[in-house]
Amino acid sequence: MLKLFYTPGTCSLASHIALEEAGAAYEVHRVDFSKAEQTKPDYLSINPKGRVPALVTDRGILTETPPILAYIAQSFPKARLAPLDDPFEFARLQSFVSYLCSTVHVAHAHARRAGRWADDPAAQEAMKAKVPQNMGDCFALIERTMFAGPFVLGDSYSIADPYLFTIASWLESDGVDPARFPRILDHRNRMGERQAVAKVLAAVQA
Amino acid sequence: MLKLFYTPGTCSLASHIALEEAGAAYEVHRVDFSKAEQTKPDYLSINPKGRVPALVTDRGILTETPPILAYIAQSFPKARLAPLDDPFEFARLQSFVSYLCSTVHVAHAHARRAGRWADDPAAQEAMKAKVPQNMGDCFALIERTMFAGPFVLGDSYSIADPYLFTIASWLESDGVDPARFPRILDHRNRMGERQAVAKVLAAVQA
Repeated sequence: MLKLFYTPGTCSLASHIALEEAGAAYEVHRVDFSKAEQTKPDYLSINPKGRVPALVTDRGILTETPPILAYIAQSFPKARLAPLDDPFEFARLQSFVSYLCSTVHVAHAHARRAGRWADDPAAQEAMKAKVPQNMGDCFALIERTMFAGPFVLGDSYSIADPYLFTIASWLESDGVDPARFPRILDHRNRMGERQAVAKVLAAVQA
Repeated sequence: MLKLFYTPGTCSLASHIALEEAGAAYEVHRVDFSKAEQTKPDYLSINPKGRVPALVTDRGILTETPPILAYIAQSFPKARLAPLDDPFEFARLQSFVSYLCSTVHVAHAHARRAGRWADDPAAQEAMKAKVPQNMGDCFALIERTMFAGPFVLGDSYSIADPYLFTIASWLESDGVDPARFPRILDHRNRMGERQAVAKVLAAVQA
């Protein structure tokens, strides 16, 4: 059975929702960041990078959100979570997912994880100060040029939707008013009403 | 015909090599960062993010290295640049590619592009100072736990190889001695000897 290592409040929520939307048989294991479990040998044997998510499969362990999401979509094709038979549309989906991972999530991480990139506390504060601008710029670009609506790709729900929902849920804590992005905010509200999303949020927050 | 927008010295080299390895019919267009062409309306109409690479196809434009690489592999299956028929192996490949994109490239970018994440020049210097450590840590992890050898995935060459080659070529400029990573250095040397790689490097440096 698939096993997801997750931490509340992190990007692992996207993979968690995708598993639920796929109708997958899966179990979850919480990695407690408050106890720094992600830095302990037990977890590093699962993911040497010390991050979540990690998805344990019967073939081996996968890390990084974009490939985990794609793997879920490819493993449960009946759930139609990606345009699997069209390399261009699949790449368009992955382009959105990759932007969330390598630019938007990275912009967010400079608030709470600035120590990754500089040791000086003043530098970390300077990074934190720029997070609202960077996250705002990223979401302005998504709202204006990347989000088709009503879902990320258009009429079809995909793995990009729980990922956008996950990162959009960080806007307030990053000092950005989501009302600036009415289409993204509407998406976030509609996502929150989905049965799979509500089920996962209840499980994570329990 | 496919058209790649590239800039010498950037991650667009990975997509460029992959197109060559795939035997694709393609043309290239150089985006001159020294003239800030990536910020001008002409290029922003291609890629509103103002980054390279961008791949123009007859279906539309793709951005971000991971999906461009996957699109090339899927569009030219005879070149066998990815394990296309095995979702787990494909995800394992994408996991490597995603790590290069969202962690290693990001670590590198804090040297020359620190202004993305903080306005204060002192903070930018503090970020730059940590780049050798972060790039060294990333490549230590790759050498120790992620690189199968002789190619990234093992015996099969894939789209991950030109991407690793591209980023490994930045080590010296990031203040990291590649001799610390003998398997990666050997890979870099062997990659440089491939006909497709030599052809692309000659074209880019012309």
